[in-house]
Formats: sequence, C-alpha cells, structure tokens
Amino acid sequence: MRITPMDLNWLLLERAESPAHVACLAECTPPDGALATFVADLVAGWRAQATFAEPFNRRPRLLPVPTWDVLDDDEVDLDYHFRHSALPAPGGERELGILVSRLHSHPLDRRRPLWELHIIEGLGDGRFAMYLKVHHSLMDGVAGIRMLGRALSSDPHARDRPPIWALGSSAPRVAEGAPTVDAAPPSKATPVRRALATPVRSAQGLRRAAVSGRGLARISTTQSLHALRPRNRDVAIPFRAPMSPLNGCIHGPRRFATQHYSLERVKALSKEAGVTINDVLLGLCSGALRRYLSGIGELPDRSLTATLPVSVRLENDESGGNAITFIHARLATDVEHPAQRLERIAASTRHAKSVLGRLPRGAMNAYTMMLMAPYMTQLAVGLGGRTTPMHNVVVSNVPGPRNPRYIEGAVVDQLYPLSVLFNGQALNVTIISYAGTLCIGFTGCRDSLPSMQRIAVFAGEALAELEQDVRAAAASVGP
Amino acid sequence: MRITPMDLNWLLLERAESPAHVACLAECTPPDGALATFVADLVAGWRAQATFAEPFNRRPRLLPVPTWDVLDDDEVDLDYHFRHSALPAPGGERELGILVSRLHSHPLDRRRPLWELHIIEGLGDGRFAMYLKVHHSLMDGVAGIRMLGRALSSDPHARDRPPIWALGSSAPRVAEGAPTVDAAPPSKATPVRRALATPVRSAQGLRRAAVSGRGLARISTTQSLHALRPRNRDVAIPFRAPMSPLNGCIHGPRRFATQHYSLERVKALSKEAGVTINDVLLGLCSGALRRYLSGIGELPDRSLTATLPVSVRLENDESGGNAITFIHARLATDVEHPAQRLERIAASTRHAKSVLGRLPRGAMNAYTMMLMAPYMTQLAVGLGGRTTPMHNVVVSNVPGPRNPRYIEGAVVDQLYPLSVLFNGQALNVTIISYAGTLCIGFTGCRDSLPSMQRIAVFAGEALAELEQDVRAAAASVGP
Repeated sequence: MRITPMDLNWLLLERAESPAHVACLAECTPPDGALATFVADLVAGWRAQATFAEPFNRRPRLLPVPTWDVLDDDEVDLDYHFRHSALPAPGGERELGILVSRLHSHPLDRRRPLWELHIIEGLGDGRFAMYLKVHHSLMDGVAGIRMLGRALSSDPHARDRPPIWALGSSAPRVAEGAPTVDAAPPSKATPVRRALATPVRSAQGLRRAAVSGRGLARISTTQSLHALRPRNRDVAIPFRAPMSPLNGCIHGPRRFATQHYSLERVKALSKEAGVTINDVLLGLCSGALRRYLSGIGELPDRSLTATLPVSVRLENDESGGNAITFIHARLATDVEHPAQRLERIAASTRHAKSVLGRLPRGAMNAYTMMLMAPYMTQLAVGLGGRTTPMHNVVVSNVPGPRNPRYIEGAVVDQLYPLSVLFNGQALNVTIISYAGTLCIGFTGCRDSLPSMQRIAVFAGEALAELEQDVRAAAASVGP
Repeated sequence: MRITPMDLNWLLLERAESPAHVACLAECTPPDGALATFVADLVAGWRAQATFAEPFNRRPRLLPVPTWDVLDDDEVDLDYHFRHSALPAPGGERELGILVSRLHSHPLDRRRPLWELHIIEGLGDGRFAMYLKVHHSLMDGVAGIRMLGRALSSDPHARDRPPIWALGSSAPRVAEGAPTVDAAPPSKATPVRRALATPVRSAQGLRRAAVSGRGLARISTTQSLHALRPRNRDVAIPFRAPMSPLNGCIHGPRRFATQHYSLERVKALSKEAGVTINDVLLGLCSGALRRYLSGIGELPDRSLTATLPVSVRLENDESGGNAITFIHARLATDVEHPAQRLERIAASTRHAKSVLGRLPRGAMNAYTMMLMAPYMTQLAVGLGGRTTPMHNVVVSNVPGPRNPRYIEGAVVDQLYPLSVLFNGQALNVTIISYAGTLCIGFTGCRDSLPSMQRIAVFAGEALAELEQDVRAAAASVGP
C-alpha cells in the first residue's frame, strides 16, 4: 500500500528532536465495586489479544517507493507495543504528567508498526490512565479521536471489548443520539469538507489539482497582497510572526500539562460575546500566553500568531491518514483588555476562514502543500528555529466523543491530547471536546519552556477573567 | 577539560541502535520497621540535593576540540536526571526487567550531563530498585562500580548520606577490612596494572607510546602467526569467530535478564577444577549459550569466541574515564562435556593473558587502540553486523564491593550490570561480584534474541551441570 504524500511528510520531517507522533491520554475511574486487581485483569485480558487491525499492523518502508507493509499477527511483538506502567505512590496529576512527558519524548521505532499503548496504574483511588501514542503518518487528530471514540465503549455495562489494536479503524461507529452522524445527509458537508470528496492520492494527482484549481492563484494573490499592505491588523500572515521564547530551536525532551473547562461555560461565554467556541478557546490561550510572556519579560510588541489545523475530512470518511489544512490567526496578545482581545481574535479567524471558504473543490491538498511548502523546506534544510517563525504557536481543536466512554466499565473522566512539535515551535496547544468537557493538552519543549505548567494554570484563570470582562463590556453598552 | 581519545571513542561510535551507556541496577530491601513512605522520603531527600560533583556535571562538546564542559549546579536540571518510577502491582523481577530494558533502550541526551538515576518502587514487600545509567565516555565498568561502591554506605545505621551525583568520584573510599585497599603496597600491582602508571593522555602521547613500545610489534606478529597457522585450537583470533544469531545487525530496543550465584560455590568449583573463577564464569556462559543455540538449531560447528575486557586501572587510580584493554578467548562451545569445555576455556584464557603479560609498560593504550582499530573502523563505516564478527559475545567481570552496601539503611541485595551493545554483537554478559554473590546481567538486542531470558535460566542450570561433571571426572581419575 503506497504512503500518500500528505502522510509521507510526517515520516520525512521527523527528527530526533521533533518526533512526529501524537498521543491521547485517557484518565479513568474503575466501576463501583471493582476488584483491586481491576487494572491487572484489564492488562492480562488485552495482552491475550494478539490480533492487529489496520493501521496497527502497518510498518513504513521508504525505499524504493514509500509503502506501508501490512504485517501478519505473528510479526507484531505485542509485548513491545503494549506496556503496563505505574506511578510512584501517592500518584497524582503531577506524577502522571512526568511519566507521560517522558513517554512522549521517545520516538517510535520505525522497524515496527508506529504505535504504543501504555496502561498506567496508581493514580490514586484505583484510578488509572491509558496513553496511546500513534505516528502522525498513520492518522491525523480527527481520525485518531474518531477511532479512539469508537474503540471505547459507550455502554458502562459492556465487558470483554477487544483493545483498540484489535479493532483498528474498522470498528463500527457508535451512535451519538439520533440522528446518527452516519445518517446525516450529504448536503450537510461544508464546502471545505466537500473539497476532499475526490481525494488527491498521488503526486501526479496533486499536480493536476494544482493546475486545474484556478482559485489557488487567487488565494495566493490575496495573501501576497495582504503581506504587501498589511493594513488590516486582523490578518495573520505566515512568516510575519514576531520572535518569542516559543520559537527557538527545540530539543527532544518534552513537558506536558493539562487544563479542562466545562463545555457549557465556554459555550455560554461564546454566545454572550457573539463569537465561536473556538474563538473563546483561542482567547483563553491568548490570555495565558500574554501573562506567561509578560511574567518573564518576553511579550512581543506585535501580536503572536497561531496556526490552526482545520480538518477537511468528510463526516463519513472513516479512512485513516491525514486530511487537514491550516489557517492562520492573530492571537491579539498586543491587546490589553480580554473582551477586546476576543473581538480581534474573532475578526482574524473570520477572515482566515473566508479565505479557505473561497477555495475551489479539489484544490485543498494542493493549497495545503503550497501553504506548507516554505515551512517544510525550512524544516528540511534545518532552518527551523533559526529564522523568522511561520507562526508562534499551533492551537488545534479536535471534536471528541459527545457522550461518556468506558473501558471495561471504567469511565473515561478526561481525554487529553499530546501533540507534535517542530523546530521553531516549542508549544502546541490541542483541545479535545469530550462528554461536556473541553480538555486541553499543552505539549512543550522541556528546555524552551521550563515553567510551562504555569501556562496551563493561567489558561484556567483566563476563563474567569474573560467572563468578567465580557459581561462588564456588555453591561456598559447596555441591553 | 579535554576528552581523552579512549573516552572519546564511546561518543564517536554511539549510534541510535547502539547507545553507548552502561548501567547498574541495585535491588534493595528497606530496614526493619521502615515506614510505608520509605522510598518517597528517600526520593524527596535526594531531590533536595541539587549540587553536582564530577563527573555528574560534565557535558560533552565535540567541536572544535572534544571537551568536557563543567556545568554550574544551577545549569543541571535535576528533575530530568533523577526520576521516581514504579512497577505495576504485584511487581516482581519480570516487571522490573521490562521497565529496566525500556529505560536502557533510550540514549542519553547529549545536551546534558550524561547520566540518569531512577528509583523504582513496587518490587513487593516494600522493596525497591535503583537504576543508575552513565555514558561509557565518563567511566568504564571498574571506575563506575568503584564510585558506586563508595557512594553507597557500608554502615546499615548511616542516614542522610548525599546521593551519588553530589558525591561523584571524589567520595572517600570505604575500608573493606584491614588492610584497606588504599594501604595496599604498590608492589602488588601486576605488570598489566603497572602499564598505566604513566597514562597516555593525548593522541601525540599515543603515537609516542606506539613507537617506543617495541613489544607491540612482537605481539602483533605473534597474533598474525597464530592467525596463519591456527593449529593451537585454544587461541582465539579476532575476526575469526563463526557467524551466529549473536552477531547480526542490532537495533535499539533491549532485553535484560539476570542470574546470580553464590561466590563460595563458584570458588569451590574453580578449586576443584584447577581453573580461575573467571574461567568458571566463562564455562557457565558457554554452557548456557551452547544449550540456547542448540535449542534453536543454530550452534556453530566451531567454538564461539568471547572478548573479555581487562581493567588496566591501578588499584588506587580514582580517576574516571576508561582504562581497559581486551583479550580474546574461545568458549569451547564445540566441546560436549562440561568439564572438558572448562579445561579448554582455561587453556584459552591462559594463553591470552600470557600475551598481555608480555606487553611492555606504557604501550597498553596503544595496544588497545591497535587491537580495536579494525573493529572501530568496521563500526564507523557501518559494516558491523554485516561482515565476519570480531567476536561472538563480550563477557566482562567487574569486581564490586566485598561487603554489603546500604542506601539510607536499606540493604542492597543484588547489584546487576547492564552494558553496551554494538552492531554485530547482540549480547553482552557482565558479572559483578558483590558481598559474596556473583550477579550476572545479560544485556541483549530485543529483536535478535527474542527468548533471551532462557540464556539466563540455562546459565543457572549450567552451574549444577558443571559441578557434577567436574566431580565425576575427578572421581574417575581417582585421588
């Protein structure tokens, strides 16, 4: 099976200091009355299941042609991929963060299928965690979370469900109330989503799409014009980001921190402020980064910019691989008042999305490749972290399961993402929505961000601050 | 501080699939009446000690001149180097082996001082382990075990002793009964030990030594002659080893297994057989490898050969770095009867040592470099694992503390070594003598030796077999 150009990028750009895997951390509480051996029993049960579904049996081979070798079950060393770990007592979020940071720092072994799954016990009160690490070439965040959501049961009473490696991407979908997503009419697909209805699968196809996609030139011109007359301060231009401690050379070891919010609370604020939920999340990140950088005397005069990956996967596209493009937005970190900052962010994302909306069908991959080409080149020639950054930070928002999920009856309390860093980009903020909670994972370079935990703490405080300021602004305007 | 050529080799030859660190695993039992928080208290106490002694504060810099940068205390990130880990319950030797294999698979971060220390709790009954990993460029096995022996207390009642990183190689020596080793008369140094009395510290010095060391040519000639007329079957010739599963290309992940014997029992057998303790240990390895390779239908017709590192460190040379040379011996795996096998091994090591004994003073490093040059070249050009192996296995024997050692009153029950592998060499067997026990660590390549644990088990059984056969042989000869 050929490796597609989009998926191949993640293998070619991987470096020792920037391993290209993503991961998900599920924190779980065993069911009432669970035995003390609950976790050990779970591990033993899963260990007995040495059958591997796509893509958990795929090993990359780059020469002579980039190919996925599909391995037989007996060629996969389950003891290597599936690990049982533990936290020192009394284990808490801090100890979990330290272990997971360490696990996330080590590259996957290219000589095996590119995944690892760790069950981590000792989180206190019998709680445990599951850390699933998958190479980005096998799937993007949306594909990964969809697959995970299907592998975990929606039924608290279900038992003896096979582990994710035995289910793979072919597991049946779980209904999320009526109508199910499967039943959604095709007309609901947005232009962006429709763009991938005829996916571009080869380099030749890419060239064809680029040639036939007349609108590409238009967008490219628009972006160039904005770059030349950057009068609209809401437009984020790639490679015009200010230098900051988020953008030096990065190194292998990682730090990981988490934060979570109630979805209801964020949704209410977004309605009050007349912006999207995503804008509120960007506002929270902006507030946290502003305070963190001010605290260390490193806040740039100009606004930080963020790259936002956008899924272009069709609702019922259940294939793995990568189907993302990117938009750029300003985080308005040069604006003092939280409510005004939020307004500016919303204006910037509106503009970026309108550009993407004008993109013709079939040209999406070509657009992404064009957009990413200078960045990829920068990384490939080793200039990442040494020249003007393409952006200051990546902020990603991935929809997760809407209803609670269970592992052998143990409820998944939170579901945190861990992402990939590149040279020149020391922080990734990814948010997963899960069962009424917005779970944020901050993945950072250990050396660049020695007190990264504070960014997560500030993000928590930023919500109250933003609520207060938005309400004060609304009150001063009057009803 | 310049990096010496011998130490530099370990940095230059390091590859992702063959990280060049060594390690020691101490399994410990807390004192009677210890609190449940014993390990947590130990970790907290050590974590507070962020002062770093030589060589725990040394970071390598290769360009323009290979140098050790000595860091200030606040430049060392103790949280990175010192880790508190745990085994899943119920933790046993198997779980410890899995975790330690994983820890040993990951290379050290060259951007920091080249060491890690892990306290691992959860070994059952409150027992815990300490895994200390140090880059081979900082010290060889003898230097490492000496330093560790001094850092651990010989007094079960001693408390609040600083951790090894705060003591370093300058810790005062611990008396091992009278007379102390310090007080040993210089005349006890053997010719081999005396060879390093005027250590060769630079490349220029090396050349001088090579030129002035007239005996070098003689040894080289002897070895070449043996290579041309290998009539003496006890002589092991480098690069004449048979191919075996121990000698293919290796990869990053490791396996680790252990075995231990009573020193008294091995000593008694060595007396009965009229050979050295080291010969008995080689006999045990030989028996285990013979059985393992026969079992998988891969026992070569010709004998396996082993490389034995030999310390050329003076008794009171407390400096770190590397002071080793190598001899080659046949393991007589082509001989069926254990007692005869042991005789042949002893004859082979006697020959090898006699060659080394004839080596002139001052020429030892030059000899080692000459001996290793073809091997180093093979590794450097990436041929390791693809051509005739220099040897089949490395068997190393390192003297450890003679009396028990303690960590905050917790007795160290066993002290196991973990070593380094190179391409073309998938197994390293290292033995540490400690407080009346011979502790063997088998470090193997995970992919090359999928059932390596069996080698350790067979090594245990080989002792009884050898005892029986030696006694039967003695009885048949009569008194």
